[in-house]
Amino acid sequence: MRMYDIIEKKKNGKELSKDEIKFFIDGFVKGNIADYQMSALLMAICINGMTSEETSELTKAMLESGEKIDLSIVPGIKVDKHSTGGVGDKTTLIVLPIVAVCGIYAPKMSGKGLGYTGGTIDKLESIPGFKASIDKEKFFRLVKQIGLSITNQSGSLVPADKKIYALRDVTATVESIPLIASSIMSKKLALGADCILLDVKSGSGAFMKDFDSSLKLAETMVKLGELSGKETVAVITNMNSPLGSAVGNSLEVIEASETLKGKGPEDLKKLSVYLAANMLYLAGKGSISRCKAMASDAIESGKAFLKFKQMVSEQGGNTEVLDDYDKFAQAKFCKEIVSTNEGYINCLDAEKCGMASVILGAGREKKDAQIDSSAGIVFNKKIGDYVHKGDIIAKIYSSDSEKLYVGEDVLRKAIKITQSEVPTLPLIQARVTKEGTERFI
Amino acid sequence: MRMYDIIEKKKNGKELSKDEIKFFIDGFVKGNIADYQMSALLMAICINGMTSEETSELTKAMLESGEKIDLSIVPGIKVDKHSTGGVGDKTTLIVLPIVAVCGIYAPKMSGKGLGYTGGTIDKLESIPGFKASIDKEKFFRLVKQIGLSITNQSGSLVPADKKIYALRDVTATVESIPLIASSIMSKKLALGADCILLDVKSGSGAFMKDFDSSLKLAETMVKLGELSGKETVAVITNMNSPLGSAVGNSLEVIEASETLKGKGPEDLKKLSVYLAANMLYLAGKGSISRCKAMASDAIESGKAFLKFKQMVSEQGGNTEVLDDYDKFAQAKFCKEIVSTNEGYINCLDAEKCGMASVILGAGREKKDAQIDSSAGIVFNKKIGDYVHKGDIIAKIYSSDSEKLYVGEDVLRKAIKITQSEVPTLPLIQARVTKEGTERFI
Repeated sequence: MRMYDIIEKKKNGKELSKDEIKFFIDGFVKGNIADYQMSALLMAICINGMTSEETSELTKAMLESGEKIDLSIVPGIKVDKHSTGGVGDKTTLIVLPIVAVCGIYAPKMSGKGLGYTGGTIDKLESIPGFKASIDKEKFFRLVKQIGLSITNQSGSLVPADKKIYALRDVTATVESIPLIASSIMSKKLALGADCILLDVKSGSGAFMKDFDSSLKLAETMVKLGELSGKETVAVITNMNSPLGSAVGNSLEVIEASETLKGKGPEDLKKLSVYLAANMLYLAGKGSISRCKAMASDAIESGKAFLKFKQMVSEQGGNTEVLDDYDKFAQAKFCKEIVSTNEGYINCLDAEKCGMASVILGAGREKKDAQIDSSAGIVFNKKIGDYVHKGDIIAKIYSSDSEKLYVGEDVLRKAIKITQSEVPTLPLIQARVTKEGTERFI
Repeated sequence: MRMYDIIEKKKNGKELSKDEIKFFIDGFVKGNIADYQMSALLMAICINGMTSEETSELTKAMLESGEKIDLSIVPGIKVDKHSTGGVGDKTTLIVLPIVAVCGIYAPKMSGKGLGYTGGTIDKLESIPGFKASIDKEKFFRLVKQIGLSITNQSGSLVPADKKIYALRDVTATVESIPLIASSIMSKKLALGADCILLDVKSGSGAFMKDFDSSLKLAETMVKLGELSGKETVAVITNMNSPLGSAVGNSLEVIEASETLKGKGPEDLKKLSVYLAANMLYLAGKGSISRCKAMASDAIESGKAFLKFKQMVSEQGGNTEVLDDYDKFAQAKFCKEIVSTNEGYINCLDAEKCGMASVILGAGREKKDAQIDSSAGIVFNKKIGDYVHKGDIIAKIYSSDSEKLYVGEDVLRKAIKITQSEVPTLPLIQARVTKEGTERFI
């Protein structure tokens, strides 16, 4: 078998066989296939696509490229959650404690954030003392004893994805449903939970900018899950504007804590309860409406917040900051973004908000760059709110006064004020299960 | 400007600007753009194509990547000839002496052969003492004094093509009309002749397997020539079976010498006269029919053969071999390919014949591999001939007795014998000029 022939076949829009897919994944991981051949193949896949069978074989070949975690040491049903990434998405911090309170196990491996999509690990590491890098034994023990733990993605899981993603990132081959689906699902399958809940973000602040491609990605991943014997549900949720009011690491931990205390923004609370309910549903806890009630109760009883504190404490974090937010490291500079117009807030563009937060220091433009845990944005107004001239729309935070000015410029471009109220897309847009797709838009 | 954005634009099927094309060509030649980015872009070009404007800008950017030869030192009209490569194509050896006899100048830079398409340089270097590597001054002097010279492609012409071709060759991105056209035409323009004759081979033994893609390539190149102010004519000729009877280096020189002596196979003679006539036409020597008469006369008068001998002699070759073929290095082994059936020869598949010749030692599977100048095939029969069991269809030559057996196996697969005569495509299929296309099929 020759890589040349495999590239040519895909260039001509033909379907690759299981053996051909295994050949190029194994060869690339072992270093027998050059980057320039792989990037040519990736481009051909991007343009010509892959069939369901090819995507499934690609996912399996990637999964087999590395270690698989054996979670059988943890009793009961383990449910994994994955978000395709958005701006202000701190739901993992809220949802995992909820489901753990409800008696299911929530082991979670997460990556660091890159670009304007924040990473759960970065958020947690804004808590003084919190350690995401714990060994596997501790991870297993925490999941078993307290029901949840959040740790770094292990480097030995799916090495093929790591190597391929680095190449896709510099060759404009990221946007491809079979490549995105196989990248996500191979990592989910390697963790070995029993069921998987996927939150596919859709809109300007997400990988998938429109509903149709989000739906296609969701359906592809649900099918991949089913083919591997893991019950999988995907929900498609709105990422045209940031989720909640806070964007930035400690700012989001504060907002997640507020939400766990029964306060916090309505959209964040609603989505967190819905995601938790879907995880409980996957674990066999009953209908979605019953599971929603269980999830809401976990918040209202205060148990979910205590569970979150327990996990933070077990992983070395100082839980005092979760009650006294002033004990977080504070940004040196803060600036109010004041409205220069009067009217309805019609748009808070998520992509531009995300870019502003990266500029302020809350995200990474390059892998391994340092981030400023206290930097970010807190919105005082949401879409649909009426503002007068001089009203504060948001506050921005940074430890670098110059970044504050550039960040403000970018953020102002995200905000659109109009004279009439404009309807927005619903927060929860679709739910994809093995039975089919329910659309809410 | 970022390479990433250029790749993404072409991935999405958009037209690249002149500046973007210049950016990636210059950047790649200078080593600022990685192979893996270039190969992703090349694949996107292969699949999504390029507009005429893009192809023209690509050709110009490639041309500008290196040295351009100034032929103004040679007086009169200089006409260049290029074949897209086929099996048994030795026309350059015949056509250039003809046109030189007729008073036009024929400077020729040629590459070495790769794969089953033979290279003119390899053929000439089978003549003892012949030196293709001569310096520019000698090249200019020969063209000026005797009307022709054939030398190696200079390394300093179009370095972008050299670097890009090496990458295309291993990433299945060779077959692309804009990439092929710009590669050929940038080199033709760098040589700086006044007019260009292109012989676009079409069929199993050519890059272009079907008439429609050959026509598209021909029309693209004629347009590129015109846009650069060089009158260009392209002819499309049949490459479903080898041209003439000989395939292999010294075997082809012998056949070319025979043809220049007024003997040789009919198809080779016909095409050589037609190509020479088109070069004379480009140089303003009159109508095609008048130019054909001039070309035939150059052969029949014996002047063309003398001109060939003169060039060989000036470039250090021993011209005795051209009269006494036994003085060529002789292959150690020879085998007759005998017919096992009775019927009409319906097919001598050019691609398979070419592959057999490479196996026998006449061609290179890898760049810089050694070739066996005496190896190859001589056909005793042509398509349409009736053969009986036991008739000799061809003789194969090699200096390695094992290769003889493998070569025979492959060659036998090229030969199809049927009970009824099957019509074949005409030798000359179309002629493309700035005025338009004449189709002969």
